[in-house]
Amino acid sequence: MNQRTPSIILVGPQMGENIGAAARVMGNFGLSDLRIVAPRDGWPNPAADTMSAGAFEAGVVTPTVFDTLEEAVGDLNYLIATTARQRGMEKPVFSTDLAVKEITGSDVPTGILFGAEKSGLPNDAVVMCDAILTYPVNNKFASLNLAQAVGVFAHAWGAQSAPDEVSGLDEPAKRKALIGMMQHFEDELERAGFFFPPEKKDVMVHNLRNAFTRAKWTDQEVRTFRGAVKALTIGRGKARIHRD
Amino acid sequence: MNQRTPSIILVGPQMGENIGAAARVMGNFGLSDLRIVAPRDGWPNPAADTMSAGAFEAGVVTPTVFDTLEEAVGDLNYLIATTARQRGMEKPVFSTDLAVKEITGSDVPTGILFGAEKSGLPNDAVVMCDAILTYPVNNKFASLNLAQAVGVFAHAWGAQSAPDEVSGLDEPAKRKALIGMMQHFEDELERAGFFFPPEKKDVMVHNLRNAFTRAKWTDQEVRTFRGAVKALTIGRGKARIHRD
Repeated sequence: MNQRTPSIILVGPQMGENIGAAARVMGNFGLSDLRIVAPRDGWPNPAADTMSAGAFEAGVVTPTVFDTLEEAVGDLNYLIATTARQRGMEKPVFSTDLAVKEITGSDVPTGILFGAEKSGLPNDAVVMCDAILTYPVNNKFASLNLAQAVGVFAHAWGAQSAPDEVSGLDEPAKRKALIGMMQHFEDELERAGFFFPPEKKDVMVHNLRNAFTRAKWTDQEVRTFRGAVKALTIGRGKARIHRD
Repeated sequence: MNQRTPSIILVGPQMGENIGAAARVMGNFGLSDLRIVAPRDGWPNPAADTMSAGAFEAGVVTPTVFDTLEEAVGDLNYLIATTARQRGMEKPVFSTDLAVKEITGSDVPTGILFGAEKSGLPNDAVVMCDAILTYPVNNKFASLNLAQAVGVFAHAWGAQSAPDEVSGLDEPAKRKALIGMMQHFEDELERAGFFFPPEKKDVMVHNLRNAFTRAKWTDQEVRTFRGAVKALTIGRGKARIHRD
């Protein structure tokens, strides 16, 4: 597993807002090395600071500015160009997931290149790269915001080290507790005359039990439901009725 | 496969810019139904229009505004709440990939809820949902921009229907062409006295051949390289030398 996080390289970005928003989402997903090649409005850039939501100030993301792409990538071994369209170049073309696998499967310093807002990466820059990363954009509405493009990759990077499913569920109650709850409920329904006509009772009980069982209720939920049934049938506090 | 695209539901969003940016990235990845619950600054919102990059105007994304969440989700069958943190709620918690699989595996109208910029989704809204979607954010820099949160889901939605790898490569040249090229190169290197001392020649040739073979050159690339070798060795045009 590659423990190095890839560098994000913005080639000739125009708007400080996008640089800052890109830095913010990098920080959200654990990327820290931002390389900015020839930003149109110079550096530092107040709009970038504002949109970074503190990513620069907190040291979560470190920006470095370069005059040329060649300088920006000099210490990297593997480069991936993000492009919206096929360029007819002789390079492997990756989805986000495959790009992340390629990076984590090797152990070399890697950079991901993103082009300017209007024009994308120039062909000169794409040629320098080992592979192309492309997103499955809607052909009829293909212009992705620069920071969103960085965000999609950043999330994929963060997701590769995260478990696929984090269970938010406590374990289901033991069957004894669930069955006790269902019997309690059915007893009260019987008392209330719910099972009519009597020959339909089995089907009605099965329907209820299937629904309760499928929900995988926890102990706490079973207790809450029993309390609710009790309250509905004999009341609570001053509303309590006393059965024979 | 669920052919219905999920609805994106923004609950109490504050900034028009974020609503517009969310709409833009929805459109980029084929999502069209945007439901906006009680937007702070009302609707329509000029900042939203600007940041949508034409998504509303072009009809790529259709916004509908609701006063309450209950109205906004009334016609949907399955709801997923996006939250940054665990809520201690009894619901399955999905990664982006699993959420998309869950949606495509069923065939019911589904909504994905996103909370307001500062506060996220209120617990009341999370309780109404069937499941939670959470992103693997950096705990020390966890505040994700609203439109970026929508963008991450939108990309995952778009990616599920896209092929994982789009090969950008032409097929490698037939081995005969590649071998011919290597022999041509080696012949010229021999003539230039490159293989010295002579007993090292085999190793040097193997190194070169391994490198050339690994690169999977196409016919065009083989032709180009042969031309380059020829130009280096006997020149072109006026620089052409004539060998015996």
